[in-house]
Amino acid sequence: MEQTRYQRGFDKLSEIDGEAGHNVINNLASICPDLAKFIIEFPFGDIYSREDLDLKSREIATVSALTAMGNCAPQLAVHIHGALNIGCSPKEVTEVILQMAVYAGFPAAINGMLVAKQVFEERGIITP
Amino acid sequence: MEQTRYQRGFDKLSEIDGEAGHNVINNLASICPDLAKFIIEFPFGDIYSREDLDLKSREIATVSALTAMGNCAPQLAVHIHGALNIGCSPKEVTEVILQMAVYAGFPAAINGMLVAKQVFEERGIITP
Amino acid sequence: MEQTRYQRGFDKLSEIDGEAGHNVINNLASICPDLAKFIIEFPFGDIYSREDLDLKSREIATVSALTAMGNCAPQLAVHIHGALNIGCSPKEVTEVILQMAVYAGFPAAINGMLVAKQVFEERGIITP
Amino acid sequence: MEQTRYQRGFDKLSEIDGEAGHNVINNLASICPDLAKFIIEFPFGDIYSREDLDLKSREIATVSALTAMGNCAPQLAVHIHGALNIGCSPKEVTEVILQMAVYAGFPAAINGMLVAKQVFEERGIITP
Amino acid sequence: MEQTRYQRGFDKLSEIDGEAGHNVINNLASICPDLAKFIIEFPFGDIYSREDLDLKSREIATVSALTAMGNCAPQLAVHIHGALNIGCSPKEVTEVILQMAVYAGFPAAINGMLVAKQVFEERGIITP
Amino acid sequence: MEQTRYQRGFDKLSEIDGEAGHNVINNLASICPDLAKFIIEFPFGDIYSREDLDLKSREIATVSALTAMGNCAPQLAVHIHGALNIGCSPKEVTEVILQMAVYAGFPAAINGMLVAKQVFEERGIITP
Repeated sequence: MEQTRYQRGFDKLSEIDGEAGHNVINNLASICPDLAKFIIEFPFGDIYSREDLDLKSREIATVSALTAMGNCAPQLAVHIHGALNIGCSPKEVTEVILQMAVYAGFPAAINGMLVAKQVFEERGIITP
Repeated sequence: MEQTRYQRGFDKLSEIDGEAGHNVINNLASICPDLAKFIIEFPFGDIYSREDLDLKSREIATVSALTAMGNCAPQLAVHIHGALNIGCSPKEVTEVILQMAVYAGFPAAINGMLVAKQVFEERGIITP
Repeated sequence: MEQTRYQRGFDKLSEIDGEAGHNVINNLASICPDLAKFIIEFPFGDIYSREDLDLKSREIATVSALTAMGNCAPQLAVHIHGALNIGCSPKEVTEVILQMAVYAGFPAAINGMLVAKQVFEERGIITP
Repeated sequence: MEQTRYQRGFDKLSEIDGEAGHNVINNLASICPDLAKFIIEFPFGDIYSREDLDLKSREIATVSALTAMGNCAPQLAVHIHGALNIGCSPKEVTEVILQMAVYAGFPAAINGMLVAKQVFEERGIITP
Repeated sequence: MEQTRYQRGFDKLSEIDGEAGHNVINNLASICPDLAKFIIEFPFGDIYSREDLDLKSREIATVSALTAMGNCAPQLAVHIHGALNIGCSPKEVTEVILQMAVYAGFPAAINGMLVAKQVFEERGIITP
Repeated sequence: MEQTRYQRGFDKLSEIDGEAGHNVINNLASICPDLAKFIIEFPFGDIYSREDLDLKSREIATVSALTAMGNCAPQLAVHIHGALNIGCSPKEVTEVILQMAVYAGFPAAINGMLVAKQVFEERGIITP
């Protein structure tokens, strides 16, 4: 059963975040492998694998929250990749980040947008 | 033109938040009417009125961010109403809030869920 | 195996938080029973059950973090009960909260202290 | 010397916050008198007593920060009283809070404004 | 009318933040030009252009809030430049940042002070 | 008496944070020496010098809070050094940080863990 959670989580992590997700896991493995294991099991095995909300909406929720919280740029970058990987358009990503100016203020939106800018450049996405 | 922003914002506020939105505006009118005016013009006239992201995704982004920020329960209640008003299912709302346990911790998710519980009770929604 | 995580978590929750913990779980059951289940499985089944850090230190860490975050008074109350339940003295609890004035500012420390005051009164603890 | 810090701080607290400040101190005295003592000595004895920034600017800085942080409404109320006590106009207070919509988002500004509304009502201030 | 908001905002941005402000706008233009436009129109065209609070007090409020929030160092740097541009003394800036140790804790004050240190060095300001 | 607070604080700072603490103080000395002085006097002279909570518990509280707050990596690094200096094991440090996934979310725990990784590498600590 645990095996199932881990396996289901690893597959979901790979589907959403791809190489960027694997890098996070590998980076943690040498300091606290159980944190890496829990990331796979709980967020990806338990949460992202749930039905009742499509994956695109889940990534919109995550990009929005990470932009608003404003103190986790590396995770925001991973999830902007994830949002694009599972079918969000670049425009949808920037709209979500822009909207955070309303709820978390302009600095959070600006800093989130500059993370998106870097991700888009890595992927060769031309905007706007 | 300003008239247009205000009018477009007021219509959008009414569409999304209905009476709960009007109450916020009226409550502010006696202390700082310009804050009420700016809420109508900028978030609703400028942001929610934009194309390129559907209204349902916008409300998912807002419910997610307000849950994660964790210090704005009244606004979260208004936007859970808003999410339901524009077509999110109760289940989609609770999925978004649940997901915030991953990004903002369990206390934020618990407190957000209890706001949803109250909104659902006001609307006579039976869960789960 | 899942059964084990849940059972281990439920026992740990009962040991630490007692009735206050059960109330949180029951309160969530009617809106999102899976959030209640995840609370039992992950924080209590996976984290608090770990060795390598004694339970008293874990509660000190939690009281400290919740005081510093400053937006989760209900959870802070539950964990001040928990800290006292598993052997922290009232003085140790107030010292942790006091120390947060340094890291999160005086408002966070004051608000945390007033939560402790209420918990102490419920338990008939006389301070200082 | 300590006596001097405490005395200087108590006088400054009384000048700025008056009865609202004394209430905070008294409320803490029964749970952690040293927190009350440190509030008098450090913020008021060490910081507010400094030259190089006038008291009005100090209260503007505090009202602004507490509005933006968004999780310390009781302290915001005390310092809105303080700002008015030392010569800020009601309009200056609401302008500072309004401006926080830009930096911390509209929910923070709305919640701060509603704290101001309550303080103004207590003092019989008619706005706008 | 929109033209007026934009023009008024651009002039105010130029007055306060000068080149640092223009850099922010230009940096955003290639990813989301509308965010750049909204920054000019709302914060600068609508808020900083208001009467009833002098510009120096507005910059004190902003430096204070950004220091306390602690997750927007680039914006803090821009507004320390802004505060100095419109007549705050270096000493007034450091006093505001120092005061945040009280409300947001010492780490926020230290990190804010190190941003000020860098800005002062860029401008050739000798302190203390 | 002030001399005593400063001297007591300086000794405590040296005991806990050693060279990393002195670097913070020296770095601030050229921009705001009074902030450096207050850090020595209040956190270290007044708080860390108190009895009723052992130093190891104090460092656990600080590492926990700084991880959860998520916007003060430099201070977290200093206090992970401090925790190790006064007798916490590397495993206890990583357990505290891991636990913050529950209260502040996975991004805060991941970012805190990567700060610990760097500190451990500086000290030649092999994990896990």
